[in-house]
Amino acid sequence: MQRYFVEPHSFTENELTIVGDDVHHIVNVMRAREGEEIIVSDGAGRSARAKLVSLSAKEVRAEVMEMLQEERELPIRVTIGQGLPKGEKLEWILQKGTELGAYSFFPFSSERTIVKLDAKKEAKKLERWRKIVKEAAEQSHRAVLPELLSPVSFREILQAGQSYTHCAIAYEKEGSTTIHQVLEEMTAGDSLLVLVGPEGGFSPEEVAQAESKGFLTVSLGPRILRTETASQYVLACASYQFERKASSLRKG
Amino acid sequence: MQRYFVEPHSFTENELTIVGDDVHHIVNVMRAREGEEIIVSDGAGRSARAKLVSLSAKEVRAEVMEMLQEERELPIRVTIGQGLPKGEKLEWILQKGTELGAYSFFPFSSERTIVKLDAKKEAKKLERWRKIVKEAAEQSHRAVLPELLSPVSFREILQAGQSYTHCAIAYEKEGSTTIHQVLEEMTAGDSLLVLVGPEGGFSPEEVAQAESKGFLTVSLGPRILRTETASQYVLACASYQFERKASSLRKG
Repeated sequence: MQRYFVEPHSFTENELTIVGDDVHHIVNVMRAREGEEIIVSDGAGRSARAKLVSLSAKEVRAEVMEMLQEERELPIRVTIGQGLPKGEKLEWILQKGTELGAYSFFPFSSERTIVKLDAKKEAKKLERWRKIVKEAAEQSHRAVLPELLSPVSFREILQAGQSYTHCAIAYEKEGSTTIHQVLEEMTAGDSLLVLVGPEGGFSPEEVAQAESKGFLTVSLGPRILRTETASQYVLACASYQFERKASSLRKG
Repeated sequence: MQRYFVEPHSFTENELTIVGDDVHHIVNVMRAREGEEIIVSDGAGRSARAKLVSLSAKEVRAEVMEMLQEERELPIRVTIGQGLPKGEKLEWILQKGTELGAYSFFPFSSERTIVKLDAKKEAKKLERWRKIVKEAAEQSHRAVLPELLSPVSFREILQAGQSYTHCAIAYEKEGSTTIHQVLEEMTAGDSLLVLVGPEGGFSPEEVAQAESKGFLTVSLGPRILRTETASQYVLACASYQFERKASSLRKG
């Protein structure tokens, strides 16, 4: 069954209204008709099976048939702090990270960042990137729509660490914590901000700054992962640690 | 330190010889000189630090300085049986799977495969794909060079399952095994063949055939993963299950 996200305010107990790009998808791409069913999420964890009651070029209205008890979300909230990579790599990181259960994405620039985004370019990129996240969330049947925050500086993302219960920076050195040690300390409801460097990694000074702000240096296993692979490793490990049971409700 | 793979027969106890594309890389790209050091692996688990003793346009000779005791390989051998996907996705699967520790890759065609490879196209693709694996193995500091087998039919890959200690097919249904159950049953030296369908997945008939050959149907967590993400999830889970300790020798 096709899945869509709607704003929480247009999703009441009995009915919901879809506007924007999804109207085109439902009406023209899926060629859906009154009486057909879809699955709708408010992006904050509520999902429902809903029956289409009216379709127009501007909006689609549907009746809530059943609230769904889906367990598709990681019990811990993982935020991927991603050093801006070159080319289209961030698109992959967002798409794959969304499939693998990221709670949010927080891009940042650091010493070895090569990409420069001016304000205009950034706004356009953010729009594109958010669309990629939304489509990946629908395809992977997420109940939560991951948030993509605006890029910040390295100093700012270290500051932002204060809002998380756990903070880590992916870096190899003697005495690095293992990803097991980080995840095994966490329990449901905790939040993790994990920083992944751009292609050139972090400078030792940056790592020292992060450590002074309470970030743990964490090793991502015995092989060297590229910047676009690291977040996927972290998210899959979190899934392995916290999602032991097979889901009972899987087909959309 | 830069890393290269050489054929086991040109890697003796005391010296080694590099031929082929890597000569160009060492001489012209890295502009290396006599006396500089590189790391060389035979692709089967042996690695050494070696000092360059002579460089020409045809071959590079080096003296073995020290055999390295690196623990970069998963203790179980994971073979990714990948339903041929569309476009360039297989390139990503090979590159990321190599970083994440795959032992080998085994592409196959099945009912819902869209891509068709004739013999000529296949030979050219295989050459390109093997180059991608080799470069990824060097970059991620693998000691084993993953093998890329030639594409086979679904029937043939089910037959091939007999050579592995464990076989699984990624598929969601009531009673699917979890990835935890599969991995927790394995011990060092075991081998796993895991089949991932193409974009359209497997047909129920294919799953039944696989089950009759002893393949377990395995669930890859509560979110729906795309074909190009599934193998990365499996490999990261295997790493989380089997690679608990931080590596002591990481920088190349």
